[in-house]
Amino acid sequence: MPEKKLRVELLSMTPDALSLIYAAFRQCYHAGFVGDMWPRLLSGEIDRETQADFVRKTMESGHDSPVEHVSLTFAVEGVSRACSHQIVRHRIASYSQQSQRYVAENDLDYIMPPAIARIPEARERFERFIDEVRSAYGDLREILVSHGRKTKANEDARFVLPQAAETKIVMTMNCRSLHHFFNLRCCNRAQWEIRALADAMLELCRERLPALFASGGARCEQLGYCPESPKFACGKYPTRVQAD
Amino acid sequence: MPEKKLRVELLSMTPDALSLIYAAFRQCYHAGFVGDMWPRLLSGEIDRETQADFVRKTMESGHDSPVEHVSLTFAVEGVSRACSHQIVRHRIASYSQQSQRYVAENDLDYIMPPAIARIPEARERFERFIDEVRSAYGDLREILVSHGRKTKANEDARFVLPQAAETKIVMTMNCRSLHHFFNLRCCNRAQWEIRALADAMLELCRERLPALFASGGARCEQLGYCPESPKFACGKYPTRVQAD
Amino acid sequence: MPEKKLRVELLSMTPDALSLIYAAFRQCYHAGFVGDMWPRLLSGEIDRETQADFVRKTMESGHDSPVEHVSLTFAVEGVSRACSHQIVRHRIASYSQQSQRYVAENDLDYIMPPAIARIPEARERFERFIDEVRSAYGDLREILVSHGRKTKANEDARFVLPQAAETKIVMTMNCRSLHHFFNLRCCNRAQWEIRALADAMLELCRERLPALFASGGARCEQLGYCPESPKFACGKYPTRVQAD
Amino acid sequence: MPEKKLRVELLSMTPDALSLIYAAFRQCYHAGFVGDMWPRLLSGEIDRETQADFVRKTMESGHDSPVEHVSLTFAVEGVSRACSHQIVRHRIASYSQQSQRYVAENDLDYIMPPAIARIPEARERFERFIDEVRSAYGDLREILVSHGRKTKANEDARFVLPQAAETKIVMTMNCRSLHHFFNLRCCNRAQWEIRALADAMLELCRERLPALFASGGARCEQLGYCPESPKFACGKYPTRVQAD
Repeated sequence: MPEKKLRVELLSMTPDALSLIYAAFRQCYHAGFVGDMWPRLLSGEIDRETQADFVRKTMESGHDSPVEHVSLTFAVEGVSRACSHQIVRHRIASYSQQSQRYVAENDLDYIMPPAIARIPEARERFERFIDEVRSAYGDLREILVSHGRKTKANEDARFVLPQAAETKIVMTMNCRSLHHFFNLRCCNRAQWEIRALADAMLELCRERLPALFASGGARCEQLGYCPESPKFACGKYPTRVQAD
Repeated sequence: MPEKKLRVELLSMTPDALSLIYAAFRQCYHAGFVGDMWPRLLSGEIDRETQADFVRKTMESGHDSPVEHVSLTFAVEGVSRACSHQIVRHRIASYSQQSQRYVAENDLDYIMPPAIARIPEARERFERFIDEVRSAYGDLREILVSHGRKTKANEDARFVLPQAAETKIVMTMNCRSLHHFFNLRCCNRAQWEIRALADAMLELCRERLPALFASGGARCEQLGYCPESPKFACGKYPTRVQAD
Repeated sequence: MPEKKLRVELLSMTPDALSLIYAAFRQCYHAGFVGDMWPRLLSGEIDRETQADFVRKTMESGHDSPVEHVSLTFAVEGVSRACSHQIVRHRIASYSQQSQRYVAENDLDYIMPPAIARIPEARERFERFIDEVRSAYGDLREILVSHGRKTKANEDARFVLPQAAETKIVMTMNCRSLHHFFNLRCCNRAQWEIRALADAMLELCRERLPALFASGGARCEQLGYCPESPKFACGKYPTRVQAD
Repeated sequence: MPEKKLRVELLSMTPDALSLIYAAFRQCYHAGFVGDMWPRLLSGEIDRETQADFVRKTMESGHDSPVEHVSLTFAVEGVSRACSHQIVRHRIASYSQQSQRYVAENDLDYIMPPAIARIPEARERFERFIDEVRSAYGDLREILVSHGRKTKANEDARFVLPQAAETKIVMTMNCRSLHHFFNLRCCNRAQWEIRALADAMLELCRERLPALFASGGARCEQLGYCPESPKFACGKYPTRVQAD
């Protein structure tokens, strides 16, 4: 089963997320101690809909630092190394990624770009290439092992693995960092693969935390216009700067 | 009830913390997808003691990045502004702090240093001073309001509030950042107030996550020696560098 | 000379700033190595105005990550502890701040809010209070020392120091973080003191790096509207959301 | 010239680095303003050797936050995408990396692991594979373009590019982050490629800032022992924990 499809699982998230954000925000402007208010937030004595409304309005007004208190952890499989290299450029996040140094790539799972998959000739060429990778990876490991480089044979042979090679990653981001991730990566200018990942993550976020993520997504969705220059705009929203 | 004592409440923490760290760490060296392993980690089909042992050993070997996936949120009251100024210097964390601009300090809760509290003469002088602060704060607000500066009277009058003024703060840190916080702030060289806070936070961490925090605390506890220069060492552990 | 005024000195900044940002940005889209292009950037063989134009356009289109390569270091004196507590909340920055634990506050330099300074009655009350602080600080140190608490007398006595107490701080930020700082702190909603600091820093930035900072400042200056809710808007720019 | 070798150029660094660190550190414990001391630091009226000594001692005692004020920017070419994926995992840094989406890889420069280069049979197999990559990349671009996918042909075809594909990156780190980078990446456990990069960067750092980097490198060089478990130790230094 070598061609892999994207799968995103939500492993864990901060419990009582809305109450926590509500409490954090209230602490800034409240004379009392939210440690005392906390049981009433959890019990619903302070109405949950009131809490959600409050958080929603706070988000809309751009005061988003309290949402940092809530984090989500995703397990992702079926992304290419090309994609994971983009993912880990987001620095306000924590990552644990499958190592190609330690894990042997016997099966060589891979990701095929949709534009290639759609064209039979391209698909055939791509698959033929993957076979060649498999053979080169196997040959090199064998040669290296036969020359005594046992434990590091994977580490060296991996240099032939393509950007298409599938990887798996566990990633944790707080909600402020997630919003920023969605702003950039749900944009139609983002590469299809990381956009698909961002869309899948956003869907999970919306299911679990609608008050926080209903308005999440590409920047244009919040701004009502496209912040890119006209040359790069996708046309979904008008740009602010007009084309010459 | 103006003199305040430290109170620390654990509001929230990432659920299934050990399983999450175990999953994240395993993903690095495992051919399969931890998304598939996850239900067996939660059900205990993969033994919880095995998970805890694994995490404990990982911590001891210094590979601590997977512990970043777990965060804890504390609500803190009864710390001085002197202390909170030190707290927020820790940058890998999220904070929501009570604002002196928006919250009127009518009662002027405050923190008294133990060394002052122990000496009756010092305590008396300190309390007399607090009365003077209260009076200056009230006078200034009144003058400002009478001169038309209504909404910003608190903001200006707060300049007379002492470092001793009590504050409340909600703070979230991941476990790696917490360990670093304890390394520095549980040290006998740390100021008594932030040390008391760090000790209280560490106790809560140990209760809830013994596998992660049993070995937490000042650096000397892990190193078996004091990394400070002999001049600053408290004597609990020998320094590595001998005094001249 | 106890009342102190704000002073901001630019101690240091990354040299060849525009060339560096130009080089970093070009490396993303260029087949060659900017290490080879570098001498021609420095010599002006690649025209400096061309470099500046390029950086200006890049900034305007919102692709601001290359400006992170340039940092500026400021030395600041004449800010209150109230202000420095706000400053250090900016986490993508480096700080070295004068310690009240180690430095004795014999003179008790302080900052007086302009709204207080403008009202003779308020100013007089404020100054009378400062005298009381000075006396309480001196008394407490004396009592503590006479009870054997020598080296830590400052540390305990500092609890009476007011938020108005003057502090000094060395701070380094990269240009992306600086822009964010100006976005928030040059806004008329920001407190007068940190706004004065931000304005002074922005002025120094503009003098030295006009291509980068000509368009810097509160968010409204770039957006052409106020992103705050109508309730908090200062009126300089229209808000996007109309008041009900 | 398709096989590429590592090249590291120091593009820029914070000027007056030692004076700046000295000033920052002094500001913490000094009653005056380092803005006033600064001209005397630059002129050498405060002896430069004194400044360097001070910084050296500060570093040794583990108080390393003032070194954050100094940053260095490197231009790197001749590293593989495998290596750059490791580099960008260091989050306290700024990166501008050559894009495979926008830059066409007509020449397909690549990195060959030394262990492969040393074995003629392995080298021959590796080079034959690179030819196949070149052919697959060209074929796929051609097919995609002929099916109308003009501007994104690179973006899709890049999925066949190997981890060995050469990349170029501009990176900025402050000295504290650099020390951490060297601690991990100059270690004999690090992969040969990122270790070679770290060694080259450290050499440049030592040339320019000996007082800061003379003691830099793998953790064992500072600790005098290996912090790894005996199973992973390279043997250069004894481990603290004895093997069973």
